[in-house]
Amino acid sequence: MGLKANYLFAVFFLAILACSERKYEKYESNKEFSSWNKVQPIALVIHGGAGTIKREDMSPEREKAYREKLMESLNVGYAVLADGGKSVDAVIAAIKVMEDSPLFNAGKGAVFTHDGKNEMDAAIMEGSTRNAGAVAGISTVKNPITAAYEVMENSPHVFMVGKGAEQFAEEQNLELVDPNYFRTERRYEQLMKIIDSERQQLDHSSIREMELEDPFFKDRKFGTVGAVAVDAAGNVAAATSTGGMTNKRYGRVGDVPVIGAGTYADNATCAVSATGHGEYFIRNVVGHEIASIMRYGNKSLDEAANEVVMDQLVKMEGSGGVISIDAQGNISMPFNSAGMYRGYIREKGQAQTFVYNDEDEGL
Amino acid sequence: MGLKANYLFAVFFLAILACSERKYEKYESNKEFSSWNKVQPIALVIHGGAGTIKREDMSPEREKAYREKLMESLNVGYAVLADGGKSVDAVIAAIKVMEDSPLFNAGKGAVFTHDGKNEMDAAIMEGSTRNAGAVAGISTVKNPITAAYEVMENSPHVFMVGKGAEQFAEEQNLELVDPNYFRTERRYEQLMKIIDSERQQLDHSSIREMELEDPFFKDRKFGTVGAVAVDAAGNVAAATSTGGMTNKRYGRVGDVPVIGAGTYADNATCAVSATGHGEYFIRNVVGHEIASIMRYGNKSLDEAANEVVMDQLVKMEGSGGVISIDAQGNISMPFNSAGMYRGYIREKGQAQTFVYNDEDEGL
Repeated sequence: MGLKANYLFAVFFLAILACSERKYEKYESNKEFSSWNKVQPIALVIHGGAGTIKREDMSPEREKAYREKLMESLNVGYAVLADGGKSVDAVIAAIKVMEDSPLFNAGKGAVFTHDGKNEMDAAIMEGSTRNAGAVAGISTVKNPITAAYEVMENSPHVFMVGKGAEQFAEEQNLELVDPNYFRTERRYEQLMKIIDSERQQLDHSSIREMELEDPFFKDRKFGTVGAVAVDAAGNVAAATSTGGMTNKRYGRVGDVPVIGAGTYADNATCAVSATGHGEYFIRNVVGHEIASIMRYGNKSLDEAANEVVMDQLVKMEGSGGVISIDAQGNISMPFNSAGMYRGYIREKGQAQTFVYNDEDEGL
Repeated sequence: MGLKANYLFAVFFLAILACSERKYEKYESNKEFSSWNKVQPIALVIHGGAGTIKREDMSPEREKAYREKLMESLNVGYAVLADGGKSVDAVIAAIKVMEDSPLFNAGKGAVFTHDGKNEMDAAIMEGSTRNAGAVAGISTVKNPITAAYEVMENSPHVFMVGKGAEQFAEEQNLELVDPNYFRTERRYEQLMKIIDSERQQLDHSSIREMELEDPFFKDRKFGTVGAVAVDAAGNVAAATSTGGMTNKRYGRVGDVPVIGAGTYADNATCAVSATGHGEYFIRNVVGHEIASIMRYGNKSLDEAANEVVMDQLVKMEGSGGVISIDAQGNISMPFNSAGMYRGYIREKGQAQTFVYNDEDEGL
């Protein structure tokens, strides 16, 4: 063969090699990265739920309240990371701020079930060990995310539900509250309106009217809070907490406590916290699907997250979004609904918050 | 460029093309297959739990009882498929036979919680729509798998737990039973033995002695029943049902009702039902991991199932196994424990059952 043919042959051989090696490239480089890189970036991303959040429906005061609380959550969580703390502690700190606020459908702002109760779900996972904890259908723990953490840290189990989970939380000395602590008038009114509309067999257009009257009412299927972070050791973590769907019945549980669906973390790929129409997120195993597209499909975090949220979920008409982060501090937070309360904070310590789908995230 | 160089360039180009197209090859060919192939094979695979099931601990009578019941389950499920029925109906029929038998830790043979109750979990998923249904912590539905099916078919939800799930089952006119229906003396004795051993703070060696006395006792963490099938239309389905862990507390839920972990189905890849130490199966998102390795990692069903069960789970010391099937009727049923009650039946209608890890499955 002539020189040119030899050259082409070499290019061909290298191309084949590159193809076959491609899928583990990211995985290996992650490992390397966290072991020798001296400036491992720290970062925290949060969400406060996705839904039909539109600028024209939002008052300036309401928007300001959301942005301020998101900012507070980011700063509290970031302080843990900046102090050399673990990502798992940062996501808990960030989530607790949102659980304690009546603005979000989690903890204090949880929506009501059909029977007029507040039943909450939460989950947490750490990427270094892939250890995880989840609780569903609990009504007495002030911060449900702390119950999920105790399941992960202090039990041989991953998932506990109902009274049993509450008993475990009590034995772990978590702060318990009277179930009435979770009652907020705004959420209770939402329940009453929906039950009324069912009783009178109103059609969808009157539900639509209620939505126009009260922008919060629209989010009745989508409210959730979540956080993902990477710490100075290069470990990622994910946490999610929710009050579920307004007017839910039959002990319905969504994607939040389903490890792999609404909450997932693995240092080799990414940490994901989802918010949206939970049934679709379970069926698509959203968190683990993003991780799998990265690991086996050789895509970046942003490509993988967008493929799942903007293509797979859209095809199924599964509304919502995710926040996600990888061990290098890359961030992706796609959503296919009109808005998603969200924000992030990176090395420089400047928190950024976003609500609508036309804001420049600067990522 | 000369002729040779042109030729090399063409080969190079085709190689790149082949590389980039590879990952969807299986997905596309599946779709094609089910649309034009006239001899779509039907097949059903079942398991009755994995654990430290050893030949030397097993009496001939006991082994015979298990094999006969597995055979009955296979034949009942296969009759549905042979009759042109759906894979989802075949797996339900097969599971009900095992739920109704006291031999398996599901339905009638469910183990006891620490509080002396039988709390059951079940899930089902169909591969054509990726629709799914799951229930956890139910005590009054005779066949928990039928409750999971009703959640999938007749509710907008995927996952229901506890009393709410029972209420839904009742409204769907499922057969309800007094919780005492699930009490079997063998299982109750097992609970008493474990509680005794805890009370007396016996060490692990006396648990080991109990295990030697009673082979069934060993399976206290692993009992589950499951089925996967492909029907004449090329649609796969998966179903799993369990009584959970003997002496379980705190409303612990394992991998069975966690869609993506213990139960998963997608025509584009495979249907999986798992059995084993549930916590590890949740953290590894076992069912969806097998599907992802096929879809994005371009591996066969058998390669993917073995990678997860014999490598990933073994590294984490997660004991157990899976049964899995794809739309072409390929079957894989790896397990990393000493034994797994299992069997399959294909076109010729000859059911095969297996218990130990040294039996030739003829796959």
